[in-house]
Formats: sequence, C-alpha cells, structure tokens
Amino acid sequence: MLVVLVYVQVLPDYVEDFIAATLENARCSLQEQGIVRFDVVQQQDDPCAFVLVEVYRTVDAPGRHKETEHYLRWRDTVADMMAEPRSSIKFIPLFPQTAGWETHHAV
Amino acid sequence: MLVVLVYVQVLPDYVEDFIAATLENARCSLQEQGIVRFDVVQQQDDPCAFVLVEVYRTVDAPGRHKETEHYLRWRDTVADMMAEPRSSIKFIPLFPQTAGWETHHAV
Repeated sequence: MLVVLVYVQVLPDYVEDFIAATLENARCSLQEQGIVRFDVVQQQDDPCAFVLVEVYRTVDAPGRHKETEHYLRWRDTVADMMAEPRSSIKFIPLFPQTAGWETHHAV
Repeated sequence: MLVVLVYVQVLPDYVEDFIAATLENARCSLQEQGIVRFDVVQQQDDPCAFVLVEVYRTVDAPGRHKETEHYLRWRDTVADMMAEPRSSIKFIPLFPQTAGWETHHAV
C-alpha cells in the first residue's frame, strides 16, 4: 500500500472548474481496482490550494492510474488551470492497518 | 467536517519511539466520537518526516481532541523528539461526500 499526497495550486479564476474536473476524476478513480481512496481537500485559508490524498493498493497502481482515460482527461483539462506545476510526495502508511484504510466507497 | 494535515519532522534517533507513541495516540483517537480518521504516514524518501491526516466530524472536535488524556500524553512524550516545531494546515473536504470518509475502523 502506498499513499501519495498531490499538491495543486490553482489560478483563482479556475477554482470552480478545477473542482468540477477533479471530483469527476476522483469518482472515476475510486472505481479502479488499485485505488483505495482518492480524497480531495481544499485549504481553508487559501481556496486556490488543494491536496489530493491518493491511497493505492500496490506500488504499481499509480502507474496504471495514469494510463486511465479519466486521468488523462483530468490532466489535460486542468493543465492550464494551475498557478505552478503540481508536486507530489509518496508515503508509507503506518496507521491504520490495511483493512482500516478501506472506506465504504459511498460517493 | 474538517481535515487537518499535521507535518512532523523527527530527530533520526527517535523515529522508532515516535512511531510507537504516535500509533498509540492514533488508536485512542479513533475511539473519539468526533474523529472519523486518524491516519499516520511516513515519507518514503525521508523516514524522519511524518504526516498525520486527521479527519474531524465537527469544527470543535479538534479542540476536544486536545483535551484528551491520550493526546496530552502523546504531546508530552514526543515533545523532545521533534527536529522542528510541527505545523498543521486545515482543509475543507470536497470528496468523498460525508459517508465516504468513514472507514471500517478496523485497527
């Protein structure tokens, strides 16, 4: 299991469009076999700052995610909405244990 | 609902002790009524860097968390293990919808 935090800074004029495109991508991503979670959060004191908390079942799942139609559509849609290139950091999950990461996938 | 990312940089000699104290705090925190998730992750390319992904049911839940015995014990235990003061950022959850944040709480 692998956790990736993706940091995105969006141009102010594109916040609504970014949210719409990103929620659509998140909904589709949750259907992928290799994805456990795909949370989207917006910084409270900076509405242009977003973090995607992506939880993958295996180390090769992120690669497969980046080949999906919905990821490619999202990537192209949001390309011009970013104030700067997005960045990501990979993490090893320590807690909870594996089963505790699973959500009800009610979206 | 409120998501808080807490960033902690630990001194190399204290990584194991920090993990033990933090997992104990995470287990206890998950029992709190106001806490939905309390994930602990360790940065893949820097084992001294940790993020706590804390998901609270209400805006006043973080305050109540900080009054609990387990939080106070954790705070005191890890105080001298940090390489720098920890920082936290608050986020508004956008996805999934409320029920989707709930885990099975299997720990």
